[in-house]
Amino acid sequence: MLSIEEYRSAFIAHLESRIKTRKPKNLYAPMTYILGLGGKRLRPVLTLLAADIFGDHYKEAMDAALAIEVFHNFSLVHDDIMDNAPLRRGKTTVHEKWDVNTGILSGDAMLIYAYRLFEGYKGATFRELVRLFSETALQVCEGQQYDIDFETRDDVTKPEYLRMIEYKTAVLIAAALKMGGIIGGAGEREQNNSYEFGRNLGIAFQLQDDYLDVFGDPETFGKQVGGDIIANKKTFLYLNVLEMGSTQQKKELLDMYSIQPEDPSAKIETIKEIFLESGSEKLTKKAILTYSNNAFAILDTLDISKEKKEVLRNFGEGLMGRKV
Amino acid sequence: MLSIEEYRSAFIAHLESRIKTRKPKNLYAPMTYILGLGGKRLRPVLTLLAADIFGDHYKEAMDAALAIEVFHNFSLVHDDIMDNAPLRRGKTTVHEKWDVNTGILSGDAMLIYAYRLFEGYKGATFRELVRLFSETALQVCEGQQYDIDFETRDDVTKPEYLRMIEYKTAVLIAAALKMGGIIGGAGEREQNNSYEFGRNLGIAFQLQDDYLDVFGDPETFGKQVGGDIIANKKTFLYLNVLEMGSTQQKKELLDMYSIQPEDPSAKIETIKEIFLESGSEKLTKKAILTYSNNAFAILDTLDISKEKKEVLRNFGEGLMGRKV
Repeated sequence: MLSIEEYRSAFIAHLESRIKTRKPKNLYAPMTYILGLGGKRLRPVLTLLAADIFGDHYKEAMDAALAIEVFHNFSLVHDDIMDNAPLRRGKTTVHEKWDVNTGILSGDAMLIYAYRLFEGYKGATFRELVRLFSETALQVCEGQQYDIDFETRDDVTKPEYLRMIEYKTAVLIAAALKMGGIIGGAGEREQNNSYEFGRNLGIAFQLQDDYLDVFGDPETFGKQVGGDIIANKKTFLYLNVLEMGSTQQKKELLDMYSIQPEDPSAKIETIKEIFLESGSEKLTKKAILTYSNNAFAILDTLDISKEKKEVLRNFGEGLMGRKV
Repeated sequence: MLSIEEYRSAFIAHLESRIKTRKPKNLYAPMTYILGLGGKRLRPVLTLLAADIFGDHYKEAMDAALAIEVFHNFSLVHDDIMDNAPLRRGKTTVHEKWDVNTGILSGDAMLIYAYRLFEGYKGATFRELVRLFSETALQVCEGQQYDIDFETRDDVTKPEYLRMIEYKTAVLIAAALKMGGIIGGAGEREQNNSYEFGRNLGIAFQLQDDYLDVFGDPETFGKQVGGDIIANKKTFLYLNVLEMGSTQQKKELLDMYSIQPEDPSAKIETIKEIFLESGSEKLTKKAILTYSNNAFAILDTLDISKEKKEVLRNFGEGLMGRKV
């Protein structure tokens, strides 16, 4: 097996050899651009890793890994249009660099191109990869729709929120792992367990993102601390207060979420206090731990060597490493 | 074999049983809406027809026919956003009825859902359908991109224009026929010939659309006569003048294409004259005839009964029936 860094380098080399700006240039240049912006390449690395763990076949998994990465970037291009976001990974978004129409159309082409990347797989493998890909891609769209719907709803429940982050974030991580398993020749049980490992880890990761958005270290957290609060986003921390906070805490939180002060620092501080005093902060930490423990418990049941489990465990712990 | 009308009814019944607004409603209601707006259902009918011609299997082709129709409607939803179009089939467009973000996201879901409709096909059939679908879908995006690029280019050549309409319109008609052939069990030669029949017919159809936009009967032509002229669209008629018109005709056409008068009737009349006097009108008629004759010549080479050829010929002639 290679190191994570080696998988990443091998993947990037593959991406660069495969993704060329063909004609018409205005359709394909945005794909080359967004895929060249970098990022952790988390999902494709998981596909390669899983393929090696189940069958020493990481090179065969390259195109599936690329399909996952192209799809992920397609969703970023269209999400950035919907969010009217100027920046992605610190660089100009596609619809800003070109225009909205280019963002829509080149995104569409990326989605279709992702499917084309499975064409090199034979027989049942092709079928299983395409089926899993479609199911996952549709869930990602559904997750995005729930996220949009939640902005204007005031009766969002915690199970609804958990399903939203599961669809929007976790299922693609889960599918990335399962695809590696399919290509590596894992049996159905191992395929499903690797999916469940990824799904639980993905939910834990997203809940941790909610947590760090408020309680993270501004020095190490990649985004603006307090960003979710400024955007009045109904995160897990918020929903906990509505579920178990005192009448006073609920009222104060709802009041705070109805204002958009020019300087948000006092608002952020007040809400931070509510999250701490209501027990929401503690409950969120607990949920993160529950989902990541679930993930590692499932990992233990996989029928693979101790050494291979260690590789996946290290990867998972690295991912969750921004300590809560 | 059924009549065209019977295939259409059977297809609509299948569509209505298959396309339900699932949750999240805001994601799937636009799909139900746009697919319920009607239209000739030209492409899915061709798929059913071809499946019956090659193998008496039209019911097995239902999901592939629906995939083609869902894809076609996905492209309408995204194109209408790009064109800022208020109406589609006389009804409010999706992005007007909901909003642009809903149009983008539900369009994405439609594209993925179209792929899911192939999942019922087994083995090699599944593989061939998905491969053909992806290739065609990417060409449709490329055609749309060329169309956009041409708006701001003044050096578009006729071969480029023909490729644009081939990609944007003809390949989906061709693929609809070929998919029916694949499902009906046609051999590779028959599959390819049915594709070529559809491709040539599709180009003839689109050129005729250019022609009728200027020379059509306002009573029977579905759209506003002169619409392409008003939009300064570089159609086949326009490109012919630049290729073979006199210096005076070219200059006059370019002048006319640089103005946007409030009342376009004089502009339309002048350009109509140029198209007639330069010989462009005649050349366009000839090209339409060449492509439709090509289509029917390919049809004659198909290894199917005389009766079945008649069915396809009637369909093609019906499509081209708005006489030039």
